[in-house]
Amino acid sequence: MRLLTTPEGQPMFYQLSIVQISKMLQNLQHILNKGAAFAESKKIDVAVLLNSRLAPDQFHLIRQVQIACDTAKLGAARLTDKVDSAPKHADDEISFEQVQQRISDTIAYLKSFTEADFNQSASIKVSQPRWEGKYLTGNEFLIQHVLPNIYFHITTAYAILRHNGVDVGKKDYLGAMPYKS
Amino acid sequence: MRLLTTPEGQPMFYQLSIVQISKMLQNLQHILNKGAAFAESKKIDVAVLLNSRLAPDQFHLIRQVQIACDTAKLGAARLTDKVDSAPKHADDEISFEQVQQRISDTIAYLKSFTEADFNQSASIKVSQPRWEGKYLTGNEFLIQHVLPNIYFHITTAYAILRHNGVDVGKKDYLGAMPYKS
Repeated sequence: MRLLTTPEGQPMFYQLSIVQISKMLQNLQHILNKGAAFAESKKIDVAVLLNSRLAPDQFHLIRQVQIACDTAKLGAARLTDKVDSAPKHADDEISFEQVQQRISDTIAYLKSFTEADFNQSASIKVSQPRWEGKYLTGNEFLIQHVLPNIYFHITTAYAILRHNGVDVGKKDYLGAMPYKS
Repeated sequence: MRLLTTPEGQPMFYQLSIVQISKMLQNLQHILNKGAAFAESKKIDVAVLLNSRLAPDQFHLIRQVQIACDTAKLGAARLTDKVDSAPKHADDEISFEQVQQRISDTIAYLKSFTEADFNQSASIKVSQPRWEGKYLTGNEFLIQHVLPNIYFHITTAYAILRHNGVDVGKKDYLGAMPYKS
């Protein structure tokens, strides 16, 4: 199978699932910091925001962040056949600091991957326990599962804070663009 | 420059910006149909949902759909240097039928592209009027701009409906997965 590379020489899978997702997780940390600053300025407990949700049966903000982190962690691990060695998380974060640490830990884990780890990712068979033995190719898993899911949970975290009055905008979500002139 | 292809033989750019985004726009139509059915069952005007937002200074649902459509349309057009021939839209949709037609028109436009249209996309210089002469490579534009933006606006549309009580879930957002056994 031919290696998928970008003009910059980086394998496409590495760039999509490590470089860009790390950037998005850092943007999420920035958005959460804005939420914490908002809580402090309004003299409200940041835990109120962390436990907010947009619908009664929707996951609250902490859970949105946990799922975003697990989507990133397990996306990279499954695409490189490293699930067994992926770090475990108990999903017991309740404070702002713990939530931020969970994201930092996830980014650190993503940084442990190399471009070469993704050489076989496009064609690898990916499965999850709840898929009952069925699988997706790595290509399908990345494009139709990992990417839409990670953006879903980061956008939902953003939306929960925005709905509660935190002054976040599209630029906070997208992060800096590498504009050239 | 080497052509980026997937194991299935499709150029990666085509698969990310045409195939997957067309799927997401169809999922958005499905989600909006659930919103319309909800409005009918509750005897409320669907225009109430279409004009809903999660924060006073956030775009309402119609505008979220319009931007999702334009992100898809202009993403494909800019990556293939076809902006001048891209269809124009007046952003004057006010009814549910018009909003659904806008999405259908966008999907039809995406279908007009071929895989070969994207042969140079990774390295093409992409700019927009408001970038004041600066540019991104096509690779950066797709990964850091088009994809996060399209998922942002579809997720926000979903969140507006979810917040208003429409029974939508993650499967509605993700659509069908090509599971194999």
